[in-house]
Amino acid sequence: MRDVSIIGIGQTPVGEHWDKSLRELAYEALAAAMKDARVEHIDGLYVGNMLSGELTSQEHLGALIAEHSGLRGIEAVKIEAACGSGGAALRIGYAMIAGGLSDVVAVMGVEKMTDKPSHMVTSALAMAADAEAEALQGLSFVGINALLMKRYMHEYGYQKDDFANFAINAHANAVNNPYAMFPQAITAKQFAAAKPVADPINLLDSSPIADGAACVILAPTQIAKEFTDKPIRIRATAIATDSLALQDRRDVLYLEGGAISAQKAYAMAGVGPGDIDLFEVHDAFTIMSALSLEASGFARRGQGVLLALDGQIGIKGKVPITTMGGLKARGHPVGATGVYQLVEVAIQLRGEAGANQVPDARLGMAQNIGGSGATVATTILERI
Amino acid sequence: MRDVSIIGIGQTPVGEHWDKSLRELAYEALAAAMKDARVEHIDGLYVGNMLSGELTSQEHLGALIAEHSGLRGIEAVKIEAACGSGGAALRIGYAMIAGGLSDVVAVMGVEKMTDKPSHMVTSALAMAADAEAEALQGLSFVGINALLMKRYMHEYGYQKDDFANFAINAHANAVNNPYAMFPQAITAKQFAAAKPVADPINLLDSSPIADGAACVILAPTQIAKEFTDKPIRIRATAIATDSLALQDRRDVLYLEGGAISAQKAYAMAGVGPGDIDLFEVHDAFTIMSALSLEASGFARRGQGVLLALDGQIGIKGKVPITTMGGLKARGHPVGATGVYQLVEVAIQLRGEAGANQVPDARLGMAQNIGGSGATVATTILERI
Repeated sequence: MRDVSIIGIGQTPVGEHWDKSLRELAYEALAAAMKDARVEHIDGLYVGNMLSGELTSQEHLGALIAEHSGLRGIEAVKIEAACGSGGAALRIGYAMIAGGLSDVVAVMGVEKMTDKPSHMVTSALAMAADAEAEALQGLSFVGINALLMKRYMHEYGYQKDDFANFAINAHANAVNNPYAMFPQAITAKQFAAAKPVADPINLLDSSPIADGAACVILAPTQIAKEFTDKPIRIRATAIATDSLALQDRRDVLYLEGGAISAQKAYAMAGVGPGDIDLFEVHDAFTIMSALSLEASGFARRGQGVLLALDGQIGIKGKVPITTMGGLKARGHPVGATGVYQLVEVAIQLRGEAGANQVPDARLGMAQNIGGSGATVATTILERI
Repeated sequence: MRDVSIIGIGQTPVGEHWDKSLRELAYEALAAAMKDARVEHIDGLYVGNMLSGELTSQEHLGALIAEHSGLRGIEAVKIEAACGSGGAALRIGYAMIAGGLSDVVAVMGVEKMTDKPSHMVTSALAMAADAEAEALQGLSFVGINALLMKRYMHEYGYQKDDFANFAINAHANAVNNPYAMFPQAITAKQFAAAKPVADPINLLDSSPIADGAACVILAPTQIAKEFTDKPIRIRATAIATDSLALQDRRDVLYLEGGAISAQKAYAMAGVGPGDIDLFEVHDAFTIMSALSLEASGFARRGQGVLLALDGQIGIKGKVPITTMGGLKARGHPVGATGVYQLVEVAIQLRGEAGANQVPDARLGMAQNIGGSGATVATTILERI
C-alpha cells in the first residue's frame, strides 16, 4: 500500500452563486487545485455530491466535470453519501493511489443548492434520512437535529444558550476566511435573540445551504515533493455507517458511526485524540459539534458542550474546531463540505491560515457526517 | 497491488417488483452473493445506483443498504455514473482490495424504476445526458439513440432490419436465464413489425426499464480459494469518459470512451479482443451493441452490425454477446446493469450457464456504458 499525500488544494467562495452553474463552480475549484499542485493532467476525478439530480436535473457529474474541465477521457465518477459525500470521495481517491491504480487524482466536492426555492431544498435534503421511516412522516433535517438537541439538553441538564459558543467561535473564525459565506462575528446576545427554526434550534444554531466547490489533488507521498514544498500526508481515512433513521439507533445521543470511524482512523494513524492539533467538526447544527466531539473521544458523553462553554474550542484552545468558520459560517454546500474541511485542515498544516493559524499545527482531523450520523468519514492529515 | 477475484455472486430476477422496495431488492442480491461466497461479514459495500433520489426520494443508499442487511457500521457508499454506475462501482471495490484497505467487499448494483409513471422515468434517465445542451431541449435517451442509429445507417448504408439479430440473439439467450425479464424468443418478422418508438428505433431495439439488484463479493485472489472452488479473477478494470452531449463529440459514431476504456483494460490484462471468449455489451439499444463492438476492437468501424448479420454473436459464434439476454431481454435496471453483466460473465466462466454455456470460456469481458457513451467501464474476468 502506497502512502498518499495532498499536493494541491482549491476552493470557490461559499455562497449564493446565481451566476455560476454547477460545472463552472467545479471547474473553478479543480483548476485552482491543479494550479496549486502544478499539474496539468490527472488520472482520475472523484466527485462528492449529493443533490445534483434533485436540484439541477443533472446526474453523471464525473464525466460532465471532466469534460468541462478539459480532461475528457479520464476516469471520473460521482460518490454519494449524503452530506458525507466529500469525505467519502477522499477515501476512494486515496484507495486509487494507495493501490497503485493511479498516480495523480483529484477529489472534489461540489454542490449547487440556491437556485431552487428553499422548500425544495428542504425536501431534497430529507433524502439523506430514511424515506420510509422519517421523510415520509414529514421530518426535516432541522427537525431531526431539534429532536437530538432537545433530548441532549434533557438528558444532561443543559440550557439552549450553552450551545452558543459553537456558533460564536465559528463566526469569529470565518471573519478571516475569504471563502466564507458569513464572515461576520456574532455575539451571545445575538445568538440568544435569533429567530427559532425548530425548537430548540434557532437560526444561529444552523448552517446555511450554499453553493460551492472544493478540491484536493492527491499523489504518492514518495513523489509529492516533486509537486509542492508543502505536501500534506494522509495519515488515515475511514468511513463507518449507522442506521439512517434515529428510531433505529441503539442510542440517539451517541454517534456510533462517528465513534467507529474515529477509532479506525486513530488506529490507522497510530494516534489518539490527544495528538490532534485541530479538528474540523461537521457543525451542520451546534448539537452535531457536541456529538462529534464526544464520539471522537475529545469529551466524555454529555460533556462536548463543556468544551465550548469553557472556551476550549478556539484557535488557541485545547481542541480548536471550525477554524475557518465551519459549516455554520463558512457555509454548507452539502456534498462539497467534506472537501472544504480537508482544504481547511491542509491550510492549517501548511501554516497558511493567517490570523486563524493554530500554533504549530502538525496533525489535523476532519469529520464529515452524512444524515444525522448514518455515514461518518474521518480523515487525519499530517504536516511533513 | 494485490490481485483481486470474485468469490461470490447474487442477483434478483429483473422485472417489475411492485411488492419489493429498493432496500429489499438490494438485500436479496447481497444475501445471495454472501451465501454463495460463504462469508458472514464484509468490510465494505459499494453500491452502483443512478436514480434512487429521483424515483424513490432516497439518497444515502450505502448506509441504508448496509443497515437493512444487518451490516450496520461497515464502510458503505453509493457510486453514480449514470447507467455505468455498476461497472464503475466494481472498480472502486477492486481498488479497496488491491490497495489493501479491505479484505472482503461487496459491489452491488440496484435500481427501482417501475413504481413511477414512465414519463417520470424518461425524464429521470435524461439526467445522464447534458442537462443544458440536451435534456433541456427535450431530447430523451431513445431520441439520442435514434439520432445515432439513423446516422449510422446513413453513413454505412444499412437498413433498419440489419440490426434485428442483436435483439433476436438477446431474446433467444434470455429463454434460458431464470432471472431475465423477457425470456421469450422473438422472430425477425416480429422485429420488423414492432411498434416504432423514435424512428428508426422500435420497441424491439429497446431495452426495458426494470427493477433489480445484482452483487459480487470480492477478495484477494491469494485467499479466494478459501471461500469458493471457482474464484473468478479480475484481470482488468478501467473507466474512461467522453462528453455527455452528442454535439460535443469529436465523432458521434465512435465511442471514444469505449475505445479508451477497452484499450486500458486490454493493456492491464495483457490481452486483445481475439482472446476474449464472450463479451457482455451494453445493448440499451441495438445501435449501442454495434458501437461497443467497434470501439472495443471486435469489428472495424461500420462493421459491428455485420457480426450480427453474419450470425457471429451467438453462443457458439466468433464473438458471443448478451449471453444471458443482455439489457434487451434480461432487462435494464440502469444502475444495476453493470453488476448483472459481471454476474453473468462469472456464471459463464464458472461453467454454470447451462444451455447458454459458451464452450470452454476462459476470458470474459463486460462493457457498461453511462449515457450515450460518456462513461464506459470495461472489466475483464478470467477463470482460474
